[in-house]
Order: sequence, then C-alpha cells, then structure tokens
Amino acid sequence: MSSTNQVFIAVIGAGGVGKCFLSQLQGLAARKPSPKLSLAYISTSRKALYNDDYAAIDLNNVVDTLATSSKSPLALPKVVDYLAAAPSKVILVDNTSSQDVAELYPLALSRGISIVTPNKKAFSGSYKLWQDIFTAASSSGAKVYHESSVGAGLPVISSLKDLIETGDKVTKIEGVFSGTMSFLFNSFAPTSGQGGKWSAEVKKAQSLGYTEPDPRDDLNGLDVARKLTILARLAGLPVESPESFPVQSLIPKELESCSSGDEFLEKLPAFDSQMEEVKAEAEKAGKVVRFVGSIDVPSKSVKVGLEQFDASHPIAALKGSDNIINFYTERYGSNPLIIQGAGAGGDVTAMGVTSDLIKVLGQIA
Amino acid sequence: MSSTNQVFIAVIGAGGVGKCFLSQLQGLAARKPSPKLSLAYISTSRKALYNDDYAAIDLNNVVDTLATSSKSPLALPKVVDYLAAAPSKVILVDNTSSQDVAELYPLALSRGISIVTPNKKAFSGSYKLWQDIFTAASSSGAKVYHESSVGAGLPVISSLKDLIETGDKVTKIEGVFSGTMSFLFNSFAPTSGQGGKWSAEVKKAQSLGYTEPDPRDDLNGLDVARKLTILARLAGLPVESPESFPVQSLIPKELESCSSGDEFLEKLPAFDSQMEEVKAEAEKAGKVVRFVGSIDVPSKSVKVGLEQFDASHPIAALKGSDNIINFYTERYGSNPLIIQGAGAGGDVTAMGVTSDLIKVLGQIA
Repeated sequence: MSSTNQVFIAVIGAGGVGKCFLSQLQGLAARKPSPKLSLAYISTSRKALYNDDYAAIDLNNVVDTLATSSKSPLALPKVVDYLAAAPSKVILVDNTSSQDVAELYPLALSRGISIVTPNKKAFSGSYKLWQDIFTAASSSGAKVYHESSVGAGLPVISSLKDLIETGDKVTKIEGVFSGTMSFLFNSFAPTSGQGGKWSAEVKKAQSLGYTEPDPRDDLNGLDVARKLTILARLAGLPVESPESFPVQSLIPKELESCSSGDEFLEKLPAFDSQMEEVKAEAEKAGKVVRFVGSIDVPSKSVKVGLEQFDASHPIAALKGSDNIINFYTERYGSNPLIIQGAGAGGDVTAMGVTSDLIKVLGQIA
Repeated sequence: MSSTNQVFIAVIGAGGVGKCFLSQLQGLAARKPSPKLSLAYISTSRKALYNDDYAAIDLNNVVDTLATSSKSPLALPKVVDYLAAAPSKVILVDNTSSQDVAELYPLALSRGISIVTPNKKAFSGSYKLWQDIFTAASSSGAKVYHESSVGAGLPVISSLKDLIETGDKVTKIEGVFSGTMSFLFNSFAPTSGQGGKWSAEVKKAQSLGYTEPDPRDDLNGLDVARKLTILARLAGLPVESPESFPVQSLIPKELESCSSGDEFLEKLPAFDSQMEEVKAEAEKAGKVVRFVGSIDVPSKSVKVGLEQFDASHPIAALKGSDNIINFYTERYGSNPLIIQGAGAGGDVTAMGVTSDLIKVLGQIA
C-alpha cells in the first residue's frame, strides 16, 4: 500500500489550472525512472475521490472519474486529519483561489503536510496568516512553495529567494504584474502608432477573455496589489495587507456603484477623455504610460498605479499580455535582472505548480 | 566530529569567482538556523587546507589562511578518496575552469559526492564526458548542479530544466550569451546613434576588462559555443562538441596567426571596413547586427554568429554587457520566456554557485 519513501499527493481544485496540473502530473508520474508519488485525494467543491486505505487513485481520466464520484469532499479540517494519518509524507496541492483553503495551511503544515499552490490568498492576506504559515513550516520541516502566485510559471519567486538566500541586497522590484493591464496599456498607449480608445480596449480585452468576467476586478488594481504584497514580504517588508499601501484604481469614482460589469462597460466611454489626458501627458514628456507595481526596499515603500516610461524601457516595450519583473539588487547594479513572459494562462500557471511539486519531492522523498 | 545529517563542503579554486563564493558561503553558514555544513577541504593550484579527521576549517579569513598553508593540494583522485571516506555526505564545489577537475566528476559522482560548479568544461566537452557525468549521478543519487556555467547567476539552466521536467516542449533558444559580445555590439551598432569603429570598441572593451587578456579568446565565439552546447544537450540534442556546429569567428583569417593579443589589436583597424559593411547591410534592412547563439530543437540545428534584429527586438535593445536568453516553447507560444541581466562577474557567478549549493543541501542534508 505504501513504501517508506513514497509521497502521497492530495489535490484540491480541478478548474482551469487544476486540469492543466493534473495533465502535467500524469506526465510526471509516467516518467522513467518513475517518481514515487501516488494520488491519495482529489476534490472539487462538490465531488471527491479518496480511499480509506490511501490506495492510489488512477491518474488516467481522473477528471471524468471525479465528476461521476459518489463521494462528497471532506470538510477542510478532515482533509488535514485524513492526510496527516497517511503512512508516508504528503504534499497538498491547492489549485483553488479559496480563502478557506488558504487558512488551512498553518494547520496542515504544522502536521507535516507540505503545500504547493498558485493560490495568492494565503500569502497576500493578513500578515498574521503569512507568519503562521512560515512558522508552522519552519517548526515541522514541511515545505511551502507558491511560484505561480506571482507571474504564473515565470521564475519570479524562486529568483527572488535565490537572490536573498545567497546574500544579495534587493533594492527595488518593479514591473507589470497583470496580463490584463499589460494587454490594455500595450494597445491603448503603444510605443509606436496611435492606440485605441480606453473603453474600446477594455471591451476588446473582455471579449478576448483577458479580463475577469467583470473587468472592474482587474481595473481596481487589487490583483496587482496582492502580488506586490507577496514579493514585498519575501523581500523582508512586513506589509500588513494589500490595502495597506497606495493602489491606484482605474475605475472612475462615478462607476464604482454600477450594479454589473455590463453597466460599467456601457458607461465607461464617458470617461475616455480622462485616460486620453493621462496618455497625452506622457506623450508630451516623450514617454508612454503603463500600470506598474513597485517596491522600494530601503524606503519600505510599495505602490501600484500608473507610471511613465521611455519607449526604449523594457517595461514600455512589453508585448501582448506579457508580464515583466525587474529586480534591482546590489550585485546586479544599474541593469536589473529581468524576467519576462506570459504571466497568466492555465498551462503556464500549472507549470509553476508542477515544478514546485518536483522541488518538494526532491527534498522530502 | 560529525553528525549524521551534516554536509561536508570541499572547494577547489579561490580565484575571482572562488573568493566571492567563499564570502557568500560564510554568510550562509552564519545564518540562523544555521545550515549543517562544514568546510572539509579547500585548495588552489598550490596550497590546500584539510584535516585528516575532517575537522571543520574556519571560514573566517580562509583565503588568507589558505595562502599561508604549509599543505599542498592532494592529487585529484586523492581528493575523491579523501572526500568519499568522509563520515557524512559531501558537496564538491569546483570554482576552477580546469578540464582536469571536470574530468574527475564521473568518479566523484559515482562515489556519492555531489558537484556544484560554474565550470563549463565538463558539460561542453565531449558528449561522452556529459553522459558519464549524468550516468554516474543517476546511479549513485549524487547531485550535479551547474547554473553558472551559462549566464552566471541568471536562472537560465534552472528555468530550462523546469520547462522540460514539467513537460513543456522547447522549440527554440536564442540569445546573447557573452557579456563581451553584448558590450561590443551594443556600442558598435547601437539602436540609436552612430556607434564607434569596430577595432576601437574592441580596444575599449579590453581596457575596461570586458574581454579576456587576449580578446581573440572572446572573438573566436568558442565561449558562446560552449554555452550553446550545454543548453542544447539539456534540451535533448546529443551535440558532440562545441566544434560540431557552425560557429562564426570574428577574428579575420589574416590575424589568426598573430603571436599576441597586442599584435592582433594593432593590426585590427585594417579590417574595420569589413565590420562596417556588416553594420551597413543591417542598417539598410532597418536592423542592427548582434552576435547570438541559437538552438532550433525540431531541426536539431545549433549555430553561433552574427544575426540582424529589428531595433525593437529585446535582443537589439540589450544594454551594457547584459546577457539575454529567449526560450520559445509550446506553452509560451509566440512570446518567449525571457531572462536578462548581467551574465558575467565574480559576485553574480558565485551567486549561481551558492544557490545551487543551497538546492543540493536541501536535497541531501
């Protein structure tokens, strides 16, 4: 049923990222020599698969099997009980964006269960939850990896950790952390050519699936603020929450009370002149406007909002919906370490989760 | 004298990178909670420090202590004997660029000694040595990490491995892999402005320390070819050697026989018109010329030499002596995963070594 160095995998969530992850996990399990892993639990919000004796769940067609399962998911604390009683080490993969699952991490970690997740909530919520998570991990020896919580599969968190752990001093982190904002500003204020009207670009981004169903969930800047909170904390700043530093919302005050995303989009054109002014002001300075997040470590300042950049700056020259992250450090000097590429999408997000899983396996198996 | 999960570190080489590494190692050892590591052997080509009972060598002022040591280094196979007999696990850090040390890896790995190194020689020499290294590691379980063999501390090799291990298909790798070539072409053919004469730029790069003492050691393209060999092999291509694919040398045929770098530099201005033609041809096409390496995986083609790029291309827009590496993959689609920053220098090279060491410690300690 289990050998001593086999590792049990538990997966919560089988949505967009979850499905891509399961496909990658299947590929990983099929590799030669086969890593010693075994799926012991998987659940969505409605269904679950698990066996009382922890017998391996077949990874082939697991999404279909799960959909037709007669079992309901265990209550969250019961999931921890079930996994903590397993006869070998366990990695819990949280592929949800649930606050409830996030709040389970300290308990799971304290009972020796390692965590791998793209879920931002645990790391960008209250500072107390952050501390509880890393205190629990450090006392039990369980691991917690969350590469895909910033920039999807791009090596952002691992690079920041490498810089810090090897003794470099990070002075500033600056970048475009939202695929939606990247797409919007690369089209609205391109480095060459005219660009479209702001409201038209927002509408286009929504119809292409680049925004959340209600585009205000991107335009309020909170998603970027969450990512900045995570990076700032990793860089040593005790940021209290994503609401504890200045975040510029691109939702006009008058449209905050719209009852739906559709009503918002309908009324947005009336505010195009405001964004045209922002663009014109940048152009007058020979620059373009971008929506960026930045962390200045020595002054402990974190902020999210519009900034102007020279057309030749890597942040201005970004393409499509790419993210870009610039790490300025003592060792790298005036030219930052730059990481750039797709920062959203099921496959690349799952890639960060799978590579975290491989790293944890290497340490605990 | 040793506890069961302490790890012994052996270091060969205390030059530029070696000294930076030792300083980072000292910082790492001083961390709380302290990693369980202990320096058991250190040598230069003339001196060594070690104790028959493997007692820890003091990391404080170790470079000075080493310089005044009365011990000579052990012969290389004896180093392996000494380390393999240690009462706990061992990581050998090779901070040389020595072929002899590189050829020791299969023996060391087969005896359970893990290897961490920026030395390109082992991974870019004969394909047989490459195979021997990874066969030995895989059968003993010892680890071999060499992030700094390409792009110094930039996360190039770790990112490529993550892509491959999670099941992505790398289709193309393209970039500027030499700080010297980057500096030369960013000054000779800037995206805006005139640029200097080729021979003058080479002379300037040499006087600023951006080239090897004899600049022909950079201009022959072999350093880039070695890095491409490593990446191509990691991507699954069985590249026989850095001489087994087309590499464009920027040394005019007539100057190959110069007896010194000084003679070469003196005669180089006579060939400036050739490079001016190359530049003019690119300009006519609205582009700039850069010295790049590229690997096309499906066609198994690897090459190093001059290519033309649009001024807006990230490879053209590079600054100073930065490296840039573009990974085109199935998951990342038309916009590659890009990593950019300083690809040379003692501190950033040592950073790659130290972060590899931390990763190996996490797996074997």
